Amino acid sequence: MIGDTFKALSDRTRRSILFLLRDGEMSAGEIAEKFSSSHATISHHLKLLKDAGLVFADRRGQNIVYSLNTTVFQDIVGWFMNFADEGGGEKNEK
Amino acid sequence: MIGDTFKALSDRTRRSILFLLRDGEMSAGEIAEKFSSSHATISHHLKLLKDAGLVFADRRGQNIVYSLNTTVFQDIVGWFMNFADEGGGEKNEK
Repeated sequence: MIGDTFKALSDRTRRSILFLLRDGEMSAGEIAEKFSSSHATISHHLKLLKDAGLVFADRRGQNIVYSLNTTVFQDIVGWFMNFADEGGGEKNEK
Repeated sequence: MIGDTFKALSDRTRRSILFLLRDGEMSAGEIAEKFSSSHATISHHLKLLKDAGLVFADRRGQNIVYSLNTTVFQDIVGWFMNFADEGGGEKNEK
C-alpha cells in the first residue's frame, strides 16, 4: 500500500496536483485548467492519486470534487520516522 | 529527481534493502543472500537505488559495497515538511 503511494508521488504532475489541493478542494475541471495536459491525462492522474489514497473524490452532481487525504501524508512521514528509528519496521523477504 | 526517489521507494524489495542497510554497509552478495530473488534481480534493484541516490555504491576489489545515503532521506522528509508548510514549494506546470 505504501508502495502505491510512493509510485503515485513519483510523477511531477501528480505532485503538482497535490500542491494545488493544499489550498482546498477543487473539481476535476478546475484542476485540469491549471495544466497544459489534456483533461483525459489529468483524469488519469487523479484516478491514480485516488487509488493510492492520497486524495478523496466526492461526486457532487455532475462534478467530482477532489481533496487531500492528509492522513496518508502522515502515514508516509510515519514510515520515514520508523525508518530512522532503530527499533524495526518493514522486514526483508526471507 | 525526487520523482526517481519516490519511484525507487515504490518497490517492496527495494524498501527491504534500505531497511537492511540501516544496520551498516553490505556487499551486493550479502544483500542478495537475504532474499529469495535471483542475484540478477537484486543487482537491478541495487542499481535503481543507486541511480535514485538512496544508496552509495563503493567498489572494493571484487566487491561492491552499498551504504545508505541518509542525506536523500532528509531531502524527502524535507519535501513533506515543505508540503505541510503554507509557504509554497513545488509549483504546478502552467
